[in-house]
Amino acid sequence: MTESSSSVSSKSGLPPGTLVHVGEVLATETRVSVFDYTRERSTEHVAKSIDDVTQYRDTESVTWVDVEGLIDVALIESIGKQFDIHPLVLEDILNTHQRPKFEEYDDYLFLVFKVIYPAGDGVSVNYEQMSILLLNDYVFTFKEKQDDIFESVKGRLRNNKGRFKNLGADYLAYAILDTVVDLYLSLQDYLDDIIESVEDDLLANPDTVTLATIQRIRRELIFIRKSSVPLRELVGGIMRSDSLLIGDGTLIYYRDVYDHVLRVTDAVDTHRDMMTGLLDIYNSTVSNKLNEVMKILTVFATIFIPLTFITGIYGMNFEYMPELKWHWSYPVLWVCLILIPVILLVYFKRKKWL
Amino acid sequence: MTESSSSVSSKSGLPPGTLVHVGEVLATETRVSVFDYTRERSTEHVAKSIDDVTQYRDTESVTWVDVEGLIDVALIESIGKQFDIHPLVLEDILNTHQRPKFEEYDDYLFLVFKVIYPAGDGVSVNYEQMSILLLNDYVFTFKEKQDDIFESVKGRLRNNKGRFKNLGADYLAYAILDTVVDLYLSLQDYLDDIIESVEDDLLANPDTVTLATIQRIRRELIFIRKSSVPLRELVGGIMRSDSLLIGDGTLIYYRDVYDHVLRVTDAVDTHRDMMTGLLDIYNSTVSNKLNEVMKILTVFATIFIPLTFITGIYGMNFEYMPELKWHWSYPVLWVCLILIPVILLVYFKRKKWL
Amino acid sequence: MTESSSSVSSKSGLPPGTLVHVGEVLATETRVSVFDYTRERSTEHVAKSIDDVTQYRDTESVTWVDVEGLIDVALIESIGKQFDIHPLVLEDILNTHQRPKFEEYDDYLFLVFKVIYPAGDGVSVNYEQMSILLLNDYVFTFKEKQDDIFESVKGRLRNNKGRFKNLGADYLAYAILDTVVDLYLSLQDYLDDIIESVEDDLLANPDTVTLATIQRIRRELIFIRKSSVPLRELVGGIMRSDSLLIGDGTLIYYRDVYDHVLRVTDAVDTHRDMMTGLLDIYNSTVSNKLNEVMKILTVFATIFIPLTFITGIYGMNFEYMPELKWHWSYPVLWVCLILIPVILLVYFKRKKWL
Amino acid sequence: MTESSSSVSSKSGLPPGTLVHVGEVLATETRVSVFDYTRERSTEHVAKSIDDVTQYRDTESVTWVDVEGLIDVALIESIGKQFDIHPLVLEDILNTHQRPKFEEYDDYLFLVFKVIYPAGDGVSVNYEQMSILLLNDYVFTFKEKQDDIFESVKGRLRNNKGRFKNLGADYLAYAILDTVVDLYLSLQDYLDDIIESVEDDLLANPDTVTLATIQRIRRELIFIRKSSVPLRELVGGIMRSDSLLIGDGTLIYYRDVYDHVLRVTDAVDTHRDMMTGLLDIYNSTVSNKLNEVMKILTVFATIFIPLTFITGIYGMNFEYMPELKWHWSYPVLWVCLILIPVILLVYFKRKKWL
Amino acid sequence: MTESSSSVSSKSGLPPGTLVHVGEVLATETRVSVFDYTRERSTEHVAKSIDDVTQYRDTESVTWVDVEGLIDVALIESIGKQFDIHPLVLEDILNTHQRPKFEEYDDYLFLVFKVIYPAGDGVSVNYEQMSILLLNDYVFTFKEKQDDIFESVKGRLRNNKGRFKNLGADYLAYAILDTVVDLYLSLQDYLDDIIESVEDDLLANPDTVTLATIQRIRRELIFIRKSSVPLRELVGGIMRSDSLLIGDGTLIYYRDVYDHVLRVTDAVDTHRDMMTGLLDIYNSTVSNKLNEVMKILTVFATIFIPLTFITGIYGMNFEYMPELKWHWSYPVLWVCLILIPVILLVYFKRKKWL
Repeated sequence: MTESSSSVSSKSGLPPGTLVHVGEVLATETRVSVFDYTRERSTEHVAKSIDDVTQYRDTESVTWVDVEGLIDVALIESIGKQFDIHPLVLEDILNTHQRPKFEEYDDYLFLVFKVIYPAGDGVSVNYEQMSILLLNDYVFTFKEKQDDIFESVKGRLRNNKGRFKNLGADYLAYAILDTVVDLYLSLQDYLDDIIESVEDDLLANPDTVTLATIQRIRRELIFIRKSSVPLRELVGGIMRSDSLLIGDGTLIYYRDVYDHVLRVTDAVDTHRDMMTGLLDIYNSTVSNKLNEVMKILTVFATIFIPLTFITGIYGMNFEYMPELKWHWSYPVLWVCLILIPVILLVYFKRKKWL
Repeated sequence: MTESSSSVSSKSGLPPGTLVHVGEVLATETRVSVFDYTRERSTEHVAKSIDDVTQYRDTESVTWVDVEGLIDVALIESIGKQFDIHPLVLEDILNTHQRPKFEEYDDYLFLVFKVIYPAGDGVSVNYEQMSILLLNDYVFTFKEKQDDIFESVKGRLRNNKGRFKNLGADYLAYAILDTVVDLYLSLQDYLDDIIESVEDDLLANPDTVTLATIQRIRRELIFIRKSSVPLRELVGGIMRSDSLLIGDGTLIYYRDVYDHVLRVTDAVDTHRDMMTGLLDIYNSTVSNKLNEVMKILTVFATIFIPLTFITGIYGMNFEYMPELKWHWSYPVLWVCLILIPVILLVYFKRKKWL
Repeated sequence: MTESSSSVSSKSGLPPGTLVHVGEVLATETRVSVFDYTRERSTEHVAKSIDDVTQYRDTESVTWVDVEGLIDVALIESIGKQFDIHPLVLEDILNTHQRPKFEEYDDYLFLVFKVIYPAGDGVSVNYEQMSILLLNDYVFTFKEKQDDIFESVKGRLRNNKGRFKNLGADYLAYAILDTVVDLYLSLQDYLDDIIESVEDDLLANPDTVTLATIQRIRRELIFIRKSSVPLRELVGGIMRSDSLLIGDGTLIYYRDVYDHVLRVTDAVDTHRDMMTGLLDIYNSTVSNKLNEVMKILTVFATIFIPLTFITGIYGMNFEYMPELKWHWSYPVLWVCLILIPVILLVYFKRKKWL
Repeated sequence: MTESSSSVSSKSGLPPGTLVHVGEVLATETRVSVFDYTRERSTEHVAKSIDDVTQYRDTESVTWVDVEGLIDVALIESIGKQFDIHPLVLEDILNTHQRPKFEEYDDYLFLVFKVIYPAGDGVSVNYEQMSILLLNDYVFTFKEKQDDIFESVKGRLRNNKGRFKNLGADYLAYAILDTVVDLYLSLQDYLDDIIESVEDDLLANPDTVTLATIQRIRRELIFIRKSSVPLRELVGGIMRSDSLLIGDGTLIYYRDVYDHVLRVTDAVDTHRDMMTGLLDIYNSTVSNKLNEVMKILTVFATIFIPLTFITGIYGMNFEYMPELKWHWSYPVLWVCLILIPVILLVYFKRKKWL
Repeated sequence: MTESSSSVSSKSGLPPGTLVHVGEVLATETRVSVFDYTRERSTEHVAKSIDDVTQYRDTESVTWVDVEGLIDVALIESIGKQFDIHPLVLEDILNTHQRPKFEEYDDYLFLVFKVIYPAGDGVSVNYEQMSILLLNDYVFTFKEKQDDIFESVKGRLRNNKGRFKNLGADYLAYAILDTVVDLYLSLQDYLDDIIESVEDDLLANPDTVTLATIQRIRRELIFIRKSSVPLRELVGGIMRSDSLLIGDGTLIYYRDVYDHVLRVTDAVDTHRDMMTGLLDIYNSTVSNKLNEVMKILTVFATIFIPLTFITGIYGMNFEYMPELKWHWSYPVLWVCLILIPVILLVYFKRKKWL
């Protein structure tokens, strides 16, 4: 778990509206990539100043401003001013402990949610907060750090074909959101594989490592659920929204994303149920093993303790023990020493212990 | 479990609308059977080309196009084009990891759900995705592989009697859906039998095999529930729909299917509760057995350990041990060796251990 | 449990609307009792033919047709035809695996539910499906077998006094439903008694029989709940219905039945909670007993094992063991043999084991 | 638990509307106290006949008729007739197994609920059914037995000051209901104290008595919840009611009662959660104790069993055992006997058992 | 836990509307600080009399009256009279066992909730009831004792800059509420740290202290949840309110607070799930440890018990035991004594016990 609910209140004490970047700072610089495309062409460059961002405002084209790294608060503040974004929205973009949500404003839609992907080692999961601002023909995305999760979207923009030609900024926002939801689905696949191997371990040789893995998966599922259930509300909110910023033709694509988010939350619930089941099995198996161990101990002990007692008797040094003198004592004793275990074993057999 | 939630995201990275068959490919060919019937007659043939499918478009008859095997993407794409189906619907038909759902379009209704049936070995269950497209006088069904689950529907079409004569494509779609829901009910019967035998095992001789079976059933129930709860919403959606494609006279039949789906989800919940109960009993039984084993060990050990100690004393080789010389030592000792167990046994009897 | 969810799908494969009696056939004949009454008089006879049933159609009187045993499908079909009942309703009457439900039709109301009562042996419960058809001045009841659960209603009809005089067929249907709900309440009383005796057993001497009883009660409660929760919806549906077949004056009686059904479902939930509590207590008690057993074993073993070791030392046959020759060795040893247990017992006392 | 859900159906078989007192009869006589007050004066007497009750019908004053003990069915029936109360309401008053509920009639409101208070011995709780009939200027209360829970209300009436002067029968009904809800709150305080002492026991010395107390509290909470959740609905129903019998000025007082009932149901839920937590802790503690016991047994046994084995070897009587003759055998053996435990103890120390 | 649900009913018996301070009295004096500010200036003084409070009534300025300590009931009563506050509201302010709630009155809004913060020692949490009265240009806050949790708000007032200049009393109330919600978020951070250290303990060396900590955290979470869930309803109520006292421009700030409260309740649920997980792991770990201990005991006992038995045999004193005379008996015996453990160890190895 790299995202904890820790530091949820790091800004406490500051007046609302003060722009400060709150979060585990993951990036040392802020990179702003600008994509501008129309039906015919697409251009792409890295913005050096706020003017590079605003230059397409009066064109017909759709512009995607991809902000990676939130360290440059001043830049984000100037974007906010230029595009007339409410200060509380800018605050939410910069404070990376937001609950996923969707907010409608008159001139733009604001989406904030978590991007999640496997951390690569074991079951732990990386969380990154991402915000989308959807304006009339601008889409702003804000991510905590640079990575290539939107390479496929960018590739399709560069090829400039498919539906991007005909549909506007709302379709672009959809494409971005769809990519994020696909990451959630990939993560569920990833967990599927891990859970399958845990199940195999459980049958083969359950140990404390298995237990620790079960616990870690359950823990991650709590956090994934915490991210994905509000994401479902978020996409549902977009579908129910009557904002003009989402065209009728694009709505069906959001419905498709909604189906995918439902599959994510279904999968999370399924995995939670499965983990509960696995923990039950783990505990039952441990109890079973204890039983098995105790049975063996009991069989050994109950067979040999009486025998040892008998040998103890004839190891005593009393002067007057007639049996010690009898010639057949020793063979008779051996008969006893063999008969007693046989009787006990038959008894245990009947008790279904062996 | 043959259907896993694995590969939920296999298409991730591709632009939406790209038609690719996603799923464990179960079929090596695509078989298209076409049934065309009116009140008076019914014909049936295997379609070789898209023209065989479209030829009945301008007739009054009802046409059922049963597509088995989704390998021939081109064919499905051409059906989509001919009948003006939205690309996202075609995608959902081909991607077999859909969540069951019902979608209304202007000219057609789209249903996608899982067909489930016992795999034949133990408790595992087979899942197959199936889609229905209900047009004005066309019904398309898409299944992942060839099988004979609709033989009874086809038989009734061939006999061409009963309500099929009077009711249109909506009734055909109902008949297909009803057959699928009956498979869900059969599966619950099947599970009933397995659960009953597990209960018998639990009383007779609970072992780790019983535990594994309980776990497998619980696991399957998670997946069956995952398929049947959205199926309930699906049928409920049809009932609430005001689409003209479902006639008023047919609606009552969908209400009947809805009752059956409610019975399925009730049965799944009942089975889940029963499995939880059985696992509780399993665990309690294992604890009980441990107790029983420990009591026997304790009785044996607590009786013989003191006795062995006594024999140990008189097995010592001290030169000055007066008891060793006394003539009655040995008989007196035997009295002790008999009295001690008797006292302990009475004590245990009072403790209700024996 | 005599009602299982088994055979839920026994009709699968048959076209809908085919009338077949599905169920564990409990009756070998179908008995049709006809009660006809007005404010002034009441008559009662056993119907031999369909005409005996239909003869009161044009009178002002209220007629109750009580059909016991569903073997005579032809008769039920002819009733259906005479009174214009939808074939799917007739199917539901004959198929005894219905989920309790209430359906409004233009000319009649249809109620189907379970009658439950203790089977008389232990905790098992008998289930019988019952249907009510409420027409304008006809009430049809269909039961799986002959019994006398409605004797009290019939007695009041014979006496022909009380509200029956003034209120119509809707009041009769109420009286029948009320009797059924009272049976549910009786069953809860019955379970109360059983649960109380289980609680006593749990305090006195919990054993595997107690565990089995707990499990059987929990199991029955799952099935009772499965019958009673939809029954609540059923009666709620009648209350909310705006059908003219239920008079305003009778509605308050249905509200009274609704209160009783609420008490049933409350009682079921209470019993479920209590059974969960009892199972918790059972498990905790078993753990406690194990602890107690282990303490005794541990006290015995830890006291005697060191003592036996000491006697073992002086039972060795080394030639050069000076202690063996000393005169006071044996008494000194006895002091040790007494001191060691005393010290250990004090230690255990402090650990609060004794 | 003095109120059980037993006898829920004692009246089963009787026609609805037959007035019979059903319940554990707690009173041997019916006492009817009548309070009549206006802004200026208040009078108070015990009614001997129905006329004593009805005499204030045509005055402006508010009259409270407090019926304690339900044995005198005839009296209650005559009240019902005089004030035109529906027979089903009278039935509900007399049958003390009602689910708490609120019913609106044209001329009066009917409230039935449970009064609960600690039974005084341990954790058990007493339940008494109480009904309120609120007419235009009459309030009837029906209790199962005589007690002084309304002394404070009566005292305020006698002093004839405060809001009673200005507000009518609806305020009186509020004052009575408020007193009852305060009893629920007191009971929660009472349970708080008991739970606190259970927690202390759990830390100090958990035993089967603690377990039994936990179980009894959980059981009582099930029943308290069964009474208080419908009470919440009841008060909520009054607030939502648009009956003219509740004045606008009084409504705010009912909102206050509603807040108190919410606190009751919150407290019940909190206590339930706490009891679940305590049971978890109990079980974990028992497991811990078992572990501790087993560690001590294991340490003792694993140390002394090898040692005893060694002494056993040199206790054998073989003629040719060279070690027995060696002079240093015995001292060397002692070195072993000391070294082995030391090694084992170091091992156990590393395993963190000591 | 310093706030218990104890004394929930301390006022029971008193007539409603009697003003008495109910609570663990935390303050010995009542301190009333008055802040008065307009766009241009802000003044601040400690009120000595009610006149100091009311003097700003006819000005345009916003006045914040911060009442710390509820001991001076007379003062609060006179505020109530001066500002025409309903007596039940005053009661709720003084009785510190309120459920958090929001109430709209014609001329003012009433908010009551809990302020929570870590008690500083271990996991325990301090609770303080706080009420806000929002009038047109007055804000009253009532706290149980003096502290400095609003220092930051006061500091911003003193600086008299930011949004305070432009927005009225509703914004001040928001700022106060926001500060309180930030305290809830801080507390969750605090719990995060504690839970993390518990997790580390659980992996390193779980003992009864860990268990006690888990239990205390779960207990605190029950109480925090009890405070924060109604707080969510409270803020939601403000958002849905159409009171003119909350300006449109301020509403967005309340939405921001609502998001924060959602994060609090999410965090509480997450922590509850995590604690359940930790308890599961604790129990599984304890079971595992027991298993490990029992395995070691069993291995030791099953190896040495048979060996000791063998030595017992040859320690017997029978006169006719031929083996005792044989020269090679002793070496042969040693071979057995070595072989038997080896065989057993191989067996245990195969059983995966070592």
